[in-house]
Amino acid sequence: MIDFETILTNVRKKVPLVHNITNYVTVNDCANILLACGASPIMSDDADEVEDITSICGGLNINIGTLNKNTIPSMFLAGRRANALGHPILLDPVGAGASRLRTETAAKLIQELKFTVIRGNISEIKALAQGAGGTKGVDANEADRVSADNLDSVIAFARAFSDSTGAVIAITGATDVIIDGKRACTITNGHPMMSKITGTGCMLSAMTTAFVTANPEQPFDAVCAAVIAMGLCGELAHDRLTPLDGNSSYRNYIIDAVFNLTAEQLKEGAKYELR
Amino acid sequence: MIDFETILTNVRKKVPLVHNITNYVTVNDCANILLACGASPIMSDDADEVEDITSICGGLNINIGTLNKNTIPSMFLAGRRANALGHPILLDPVGAGASRLRTETAAKLIQELKFTVIRGNISEIKALAQGAGGTKGVDANEADRVSADNLDSVIAFARAFSDSTGAVIAITGATDVIIDGKRACTITNGHPMMSKITGTGCMLSAMTTAFVTANPEQPFDAVCAAVIAMGLCGELAHDRLTPLDGNSSYRNYIIDAVFNLTAEQLKEGAKYELR
Amino acid sequence: MIDFETILTNVRKKVPLVHNITNYVTVNDCANILLACGASPIMSDDADEVEDITSICGGLNINIGTLNKNTIPSMFLAGRRANALGHPILLDPVGAGASRLRTETAAKLIQELKFTVIRGNISEIKALAQGAGGTKGVDANEADRVSADNLDSVIAFARAFSDSTGAVIAITGATDVIIDGKRACTITNGHPMMSKITGTGCMLSAMTTAFVTANPEQPFDAVCAAVIAMGLCGELAHDRLTPLDGNSSYRNYIIDAVFNLTAEQLKEGAKYELR
Repeated sequence: MIDFETILTNVRKKVPLVHNITNYVTVNDCANILLACGASPIMSDDADEVEDITSICGGLNINIGTLNKNTIPSMFLAGRRANALGHPILLDPVGAGASRLRTETAAKLIQELKFTVIRGNISEIKALAQGAGGTKGVDANEADRVSADNLDSVIAFARAFSDSTGAVIAITGATDVIIDGKRACTITNGHPMMSKITGTGCMLSAMTTAFVTANPEQPFDAVCAAVIAMGLCGELAHDRLTPLDGNSSYRNYIIDAVFNLTAEQLKEGAKYELR
Repeated sequence: MIDFETILTNVRKKVPLVHNITNYVTVNDCANILLACGASPIMSDDADEVEDITSICGGLNINIGTLNKNTIPSMFLAGRRANALGHPILLDPVGAGASRLRTETAAKLIQELKFTVIRGNISEIKALAQGAGGTKGVDANEADRVSADNLDSVIAFARAFSDSTGAVIAITGATDVIIDGKRACTITNGHPMMSKITGTGCMLSAMTTAFVTANPEQPFDAVCAAVIAMGLCGELAHDRLTPLDGNSSYRNYIIDAVFNLTAEQLKEGAKYELR
Repeated sequence: MIDFETILTNVRKKVPLVHNITNYVTVNDCANILLACGASPIMSDDADEVEDITSICGGLNINIGTLNKNTIPSMFLAGRRANALGHPILLDPVGAGASRLRTETAAKLIQELKFTVIRGNISEIKALAQGAGGTKGVDANEADRVSADNLDSVIAFARAFSDSTGAVIAITGATDVIIDGKRACTITNGHPMMSKITGTGCMLSAMTTAFVTANPEQPFDAVCAAVIAMGLCGELAHDRLTPLDGNSSYRNYIIDAVFNLTAEQLKEGAKYELR
């Protein structure tokens, strides 16, 4: 059983300061969802300051969504400092498989840094874990989709990837799969319309970093709770949609739902299975 | 007659992946409007990956809104690759005329690349076409405004610009003028309050790229349909405004309207004249 | 008495064009709030064009929220040009105290440029004025909070900082303190939930630049009016919240409230004391 009460309370009581080296597409939503869940965001990506910034923070979220030659070195500098300080780090390998730069940068990050969590869609995680992928831009490839048919093999490959990296692996999609060295959790919260908003993955990564930072004793449970929270808020926000609402209002409603989220809602609405 | 049904259906069925090298001001809205219309966005502007990214996409949207010394070379690299692959490219010369860097970069882009569409306000297009302009920042200069009085001369100069560049020219404002080598289309959809939202032009450029990418056989009609769609959604969204709503809710409602847009709405609401 | 009518009318009649060198986290909200209050935004941060852009604008807003090695030189170039042209400049020293780069850059900006306004939270202003600070990321440190107990000493140190810089100093928080060489104004408009939105400070800085640009004869009053306007809109927007709304809708409602703001609302809702 995931102790939603403790995990959520820890985020809201500790107000973890999260350092984000992230993309400029969804950065505002990432900052607002961090505030919504009870954390505090800071964005900083210049090599001349990332070590200072990481040092005053509790956790680090690295998202390669619009990586460039200035921010890549900053990812390594901040990551090494965070590792030295024992801060949790999350990697969101946005678009790994879509360009050599993305795939190689993500691979090198995993090689040189110790990540607490690696979160991506199935195509991105495959590109990283297997050194190959059929990523369609920043979305998962249809052929890769997690289903009842391939769930066991997805779990097996995620477990191997977790073993080799030491990280909790979070593969998110219609069915989410969270894996560490021993446990597996499948989650079916969420709504298909979430894929019509840019940045649901980025927002989830930011929020997951906050959850893990505030719950250092139980990273696996914290990742599961964050993924469930995001999916559940996608459901709650969808219930709010009027016929004239579309993906832009939906985005606002999801962040709003995170802002108002209670442990009771999580307990009642969570759809997960621990294996 | 513009075949809205076919054009819109093509976007939604083909889900064109659009590579955006764009500004950081309106990038989130561009991504969300691409998703709203049925396309899929990817943003990438580092010289080390733009060719890879363009190669997996169907079309390229170049917007110079916050151009800088790192992203300018990327525009040329991606553009050359897109040209080599036969992908449509759109240029949004944001603020051309406002600085030498913008005017010269836009001029050089037109010189070295073959654009399918060039979309801007009248001052930006004049700055480009005539090498001179009285651009007031990123908005059109009042003196340049398209009216019944100067419509013929606007069409004539846009036609000459289309002839010299080979691109469909889209001059947008209260009255939109779309021109190719043979045809002209004037459009009066839209609402004045759209100018109180940052990024309606950028969003339109992104959406136009998607429409053109999904309808390679009829770029002129696809541009007209995108411009009409944006204007009509501005009207539909305006109808939704309550007395407490302002430009921020209006922005959300416009993207929402694009999300819910049907070919029937386009057929009924389009206000255009083909000449 | 602050003449809200004249100050607000000037912004809406003159439509000041404001050049923003700002961060990529909150830039879209800054652009939309500038449009909402009646101004016109342009964002530009490349060293090759900032002098051109500043020259066509009326005021300059420098925000160091995501400063980097490319944009820092641009801040100095644009600032020197703005000073030469007599344009008002505002500095928002986001996160001063959080990294050496931020503190030193802000200090050097103050040393080399003449600012009309410096606006930040108490921790940021302390970091700048006293060369030391206990900034907690981009939020004010609890220990620094302005209260009845320390108000006199806050005013005294802000006055000294104003004397040494020649700028109007705006320290914003639960109680806002605005200081110039002779006057002091304390403001208690606002709502605590504003701190749950990213960028209320950045938005206020952008809007303040517009107010000061449109009211060059009375910068102190213009700063007070902008700070009151932001706080009041935070209250008005809060009144609009439904039980399902959270910080994302709240952000939209604040910008909407600025869009609809009248001088009458300001006169009736302002909570300030001139000393």
